[in-house]
Amino acid sequence: MLRVFTTGGTIDKVYFDALSAYQVGEPAAASVLAAMRVEVPYEVTQLMRKDSLEITDADREAICRAVLDAPQAKILVTHGTDTMDQTAQALQRALVARPDKSVVLTGALLPGAFRDTDAIFNLGFALGALQAMAGGVRLAMNGRLFDPAHVRKDRQAGRFVDR
Amino acid sequence: MLRVFTTGGTIDKVYFDALSAYQVGEPAAASVLAAMRVEVPYEVTQLMRKDSLEITDADREAICRAVLDAPQAKILVTHGTDTMDQTAQALQRALVARPDKSVVLTGALLPGAFRDTDAIFNLGFALGALQAMAGGVRLAMNGRLFDPAHVRKDRQAGRFVDR
Amino acid sequence: MLRVFTTGGTIDKVYFDALSAYQVGEPAAASVLAAMRVEVPYEVTQLMRKDSLEITDADREAICRAVLDAPQAKILVTHGTDTMDQTAQALQRALVARPDKSVVLTGALLPGAFRDTDAIFNLGFALGALQAMAGGVRLAMNGRLFDPAHVRKDRQAGRFVDR
Amino acid sequence: MLRVFTTGGTIDKVYFDALSAYQVGEPAAASVLAAMRVEVPYEVTQLMRKDSLEITDADREAICRAVLDAPQAKILVTHGTDTMDQTAQALQRALVARPDKSVVLTGALLPGAFRDTDAIFNLGFALGALQAMAGGVRLAMNGRLFDPAHVRKDRQAGRFVDR
Repeated sequence: MLRVFTTGGTIDKVYFDALSAYQVGEPAAASVLAAMRVEVPYEVTQLMRKDSLEITDADREAICRAVLDAPQAKILVTHGTDTMDQTAQALQRALVARPDKSVVLTGALLPGAFRDTDAIFNLGFALGALQAMAGGVRLAMNGRLFDPAHVRKDRQAGRFVDR
Repeated sequence: MLRVFTTGGTIDKVYFDALSAYQVGEPAAASVLAAMRVEVPYEVTQLMRKDSLEITDADREAICRAVLDAPQAKILVTHGTDTMDQTAQALQRALVARPDKSVVLTGALLPGAFRDTDAIFNLGFALGALQAMAGGVRLAMNGRLFDPAHVRKDRQAGRFVDR
Repeated sequence: MLRVFTTGGTIDKVYFDALSAYQVGEPAAASVLAAMRVEVPYEVTQLMRKDSLEITDADREAICRAVLDAPQAKILVTHGTDTMDQTAQALQRALVARPDKSVVLTGALLPGAFRDTDAIFNLGFALGALQAMAGGVRLAMNGRLFDPAHVRKDRQAGRFVDR
Repeated sequence: MLRVFTTGGTIDKVYFDALSAYQVGEPAAASVLAAMRVEVPYEVTQLMRKDSLEITDADREAICRAVLDAPQAKILVTHGTDTMDQTAQALQRALVARPDKSVVLTGALLPGAFRDTDAIFNLGFALGALQAMAGGVRLAMNGRLFDPAHVRKDRQAGRFVDR
C-alpha cells in the first residue's frame, strides 16, 4: 500500500480562462495514477494547494508530520520544484530515526495538463524508485534520484543538479 | 550510465495509413527519454523489431547476450507484453552469477503514439526502479515490480498479475 | 441543428491489446465534439463500423438514404479515407435535386486516439465548412475542400490531391 | 493562398517555469497548421504578442490595416478571446467596401500547449469556414460562426453567445 501526499506546485497548475491566469487545481497524481493502469493499492491525500515559493516552515512541518503519522511505509510527495529541495531536507531530518520509511518527492517543470508535461514520467519514475527502495528520502527529478543533502534546482536552466 | 535495449512490441507500434495496419516502428524509449528532460546519461540500442509473440528462443538468447556483454550495470529492456515474462525469466537465469547487474523490463499495453498510452509512465517507472535497485531482474508493469518467477500476463484482463 | 453520420475508418480505429490489432471502435466524432466545447446542437448516429475498403455499394446506398431521410439540412459524414471519394461522388449524385442540403465528408489519416492525429483538426475543418456552405457536397481533407468529382487519394503519399 | 495573422491571446500562451508564469509565446497557428497535414498554401505573420485585454485601438487599427493591405482574399486572424468581438467589429467596419475579402477570427479558451486545448479544433473550424465563405467577417468559436455584430463572450461561462 502506497500513500501519496500532494502539496500543489506546477504539476497541479491549471488555467482559468476567466482570470487568464494559472492556479493550483486538483492533484495531477490522482488522475495520472488512475489513468495509467496502476494496480498497486494507493491513497491520495491533498495536504495543501500552494506554489512551492509560498510553502512556509509551518507547512513543511505539517508535511513531515503527515509522513510520520501515515501508517504506510512508502510515501510519494508531489511538490512545487522551487523549494522541493528544502522540503526534502526537512523530511530527511524528520525521518532520521525511521529507517522503515521510504519517501520520494517529485513534481513537474511543465503543468500536468500540458501535452508535453514531464508529470506522467516523473510520477512513474518516483513510484518505481519508491517500490525498489529500502528506506530513506530521495528527490526524483530529471530522471535522477538525488540525496536531499546534495541537490539544488538550477532555476536558470530549469533542472535539478548536484551541489 | 544506463543502457536501454529495445526489442519491439506494442510500445513501439505505429500506424501505416498506406497499409491501414500497425507495424513496429522506431523505439518509443528513445523519443520519450529525449523529451522527458532525463539528465542521466543513457544509450539506446535497438536489438530487434518484433511483436513479442514472434520472439524466438534464439532472440531471447541474443537479448541475454547483449545484457551480459554490455559494460553498464543498469539495463532497461523494452519488450512486447505477451511474452515479457518469458524473457524476464531467461534474463534471471542468465544473470544468476552476476549480482552486479540490475535489469528491468517494461513495455506498454497501448502504443506509445497514443494520447493515453502507458508507455511514458512505464518507462519512468522502470527507470526509477532501476536506479534504486542493487542488482536482480524485475518486470515493471501496471505500477508494480514483479519477480520474473512469479508473474504472468492475464491477457483477458490486459494486465500483469501474480502467479 | 447538425447531423453527424459515422461509418468507421481510420478515424475511429482503436487498439486491442488482447488481439495486438486494430479495430473500428466508438466514433471519434462524438467524443471530439463533446470535448471541444461545441455549442451548436448536433446529433451523432453510427451507420456502420467499417474500414472504407470494405464499404460496399449497398453500404453507400444506405449512407445516401440516411442523408436524404435526415431532417437536418447540414450533415457531416465521417468515413475511411481509402474510398471516401467514391462515397462523396455517390452522395453528390444522390443530392443533385436537393440544393437545400449541405454535406461534408471527412476522416483521418492517423487514428483519433493518437497524440498527433489529424482527426480533431479535420472535424473542426469539416464543421466550419459545413456551416458556411449553402448547399452541395464537399470532401474535406488536408485543410482543403474538394469537389467530389475532382479528388482522389494518393495512397503512396497519404494525402488527397486534385484529379 | 491563405494569410494568417496572429496577435497573441490564450491560444499562444506558454508556461515559463523560471517565472512560474504564463507568457504569450510563438503562434500556435504556425505549429498546428504545419502538423495537421494542411496542403493549402498559407503564410503566417505575427502582428503582435498580446493578451487581448491589452489590445488598444491603435492595435486594432494595425490589424485592420494588415488585413486590407494583404494581397490574399482569405484571411485568418488568431486573437485573445476577451476582446475578440471588438476586433471582429472593427474589421467588419473596415471591410464594408471590400466584399472580395473573407476574414475569420478564432482563438482558444485553453492554451494550445494543453492536452485538451480547443486550439486545434478551432483553427480547423476557422479554416474550413474561411474556405467556404464568399466574403464577410466571422468570429469562429465554440463550433459556431458568429456575425461580429451579434456576439459577445460570456466570461462567467467561458463561451461565446448571441447578443
